[in-house]
Amino acid sequence: MLGRTYDHEVCSAARALELVGERWSLLILRNAMFTPYRRFTDFQARLGVAPNILQKRLELFVESGLMELAGDEYRLTPKGLDLKPVIIALTEWGDKWDAPHGPPMAYKHVDCGGRVDVRLECPKCGKEPRVSDVMAQPTKAFEAYRVERKR
Amino acid sequence: MLGRTYDHEVCSAARALELVGERWSLLILRNAMFTPYRRFTDFQARLGVAPNILQKRLELFVESGLMELAGDEYRLTPKGLDLKPVIIALTEWGDKWDAPHGPPMAYKHVDCGGRVDVRLECPKCGKEPRVSDVMAQPTKAFEAYRVERKR
Repeated sequence: MLGRTYDHEVCSAARALELVGERWSLLILRNAMFTPYRRFTDFQARLGVAPNILQKRLELFVESGLMELAGDEYRLTPKGLDLKPVIIALTEWGDKWDAPHGPPMAYKHVDCGGRVDVRLECPKCGKEPRVSDVMAQPTKAFEAYRVERKR
Repeated sequence: MLGRTYDHEVCSAARALELVGERWSLLILRNAMFTPYRRFTDFQARLGVAPNILQKRLELFVESGLMELAGDEYRLTPKGLDLKPVIIALTEWGDKWDAPHGPPMAYKHVDCGGRVDVRLECPKCGKEPRVSDVMAQPTKAFEAYRVERKR
C-alpha cells in the first residue's frame, strides 16, 4: 500500500516523500544505486536496518515501480535511478555542513572520471541562482490538483 | 538531542538524513523556505502535523543550526537554506514521475523570473551526466571517518 501521509499536499516534493520519506528509505535506495549489493540480506547486513522495516520499504519500492525483483536482487528501475540527484544533493549538503575531514565519498562520471555535482540552474539568464534567490510559485496546473484532491 | 540512527555510516547523505530524514522534516523545511508562514501554529495548521512531532522537529532544527527562533518565527539559517536543492530535486522527481497534470509548482529565479531547475554537472567534461553514468567512490578522507567511528 502506498503511503498517504501527506495526502492534502499539492506538491511534487510531498508526493516524492510519500515514497521515499520514511526512515531508511533513501539509504536503501542509495545502496541500490551505488553498491553492487542488492539482495535483502545485503541491505540488512550493510545498513543494520530491522528486517520488518526493510521488508516494508522494499515492498513499497517494488509496488511503486522504483525497483524490480530480479531473482533475489532488488534492482532500480529508471524511476528509481532518477532519484540519484536527490541523494547527491543530500550528500553535497552533508559534505559542506557536516564533514570535518572533507567529503568521504565522491561521485564520478563514468565517461570521463570527472567529479559530478548538483547545481541549481536558471536556463533563462544562464546563471546559477543563489539558494536565497529561488522562490516557489503555483503553476496553472495547481488548480487541477486542488479540484482532484477535494473529490 | 541529535538523531544517531545511522551512526555507523560514513556517508554525508546519511549525516544529512540524521537531521532531515524523519517524517515531516523536509516538508517543514520546505514551508520555511518557500512560504512566509513560519510560526509554530502556521506549520501545524498548514501541514496537519501533530504538535508533539512538530515540536521535536523544530527543536532539532534549532539545535543543529538549520533554523533560529526570531520572536515566534522559525527562520532558516544559511545552513537550512542550503537544503533548497534537495527539495527542488525531490520536486523535479515528483514532477516527472507523479504529476499527471504537470508540475503544480514552479521554482523561479527572483533576479530574472526564469524557471530554476537542478542539474547534474560534470565540470571535467562539461556534460550533464546521465543518472546511470554516475558512480560513487571513497575519497582519501574516507579512512579518517572510519578511524574516528571506531573510537
